[in-house]
Amino acid sequence: KALARSAVELRCQCIDTHAKFIHPNFIQNVNLTPSGPHCKNVEVIATLTDGREVCLEPTALWVKLIIKAILDK
Amino acid sequence: KALARSAVELRCQCIDTHAKFIHPNFIQNVNLTPSGPHCKNVEVIATLTDGREVCLEPTALWVKLIIKAILDK
Repeated sequence: KALARSAVELRCQCIDTHAKFIHPNFIQNVNLTPSGPHCKNVEVIATLTDGREVCLEPTALWVKLIIKAILDK
Repeated sequence: KALARSAVELRCQCIDTHAKFIHPNFIQNVNLTPSGPHCKNVEVIATLTDGREVCLEPTALWVKLIIKAILDK
C-alpha cells in the first residue's frame, strides 16, 4: 500500500494507509514526513522486518503508541 | 554527525547525537529505528531541508516534541 522509494521525494508517497495493527516486533523502522509543499499529508511509512513498506495513519492511536514505544525503549 | 546511508543497515548508524535544538521547519523527515540485534540503541535520524542527516537523541524532550508535532500537524 505504500509507494515509498526514497525519503526525499517531491510528491506524496502514500496512496492509502494500512488499517490493521502491526506488532512492533515486525517493524524495522518508521519514517515520519511532515506535510509540506510536496504533499499536504503527514506521512508515516513503516519498513517491516521482511522489507515491505507500509503507510500508516498518523492520527491512529496505535501508530502514535508504536512511535512512543520505539522512543521510550 | 550521522552516518545514515540507508534505512536498512546491519549496524548502528549514529556515532553521536546532535545536542542543539533544530527548528521543525528545517526538518524534512525523521526516521526512527528501534533497538535490535543490529544496534543496541534506538536511533532517530532527521533529514534536514538541506539534505544533511543528523542523529537526534531519542530521550531528549525537544526530539519527542518535534515528533509529536509532526504527527499532530
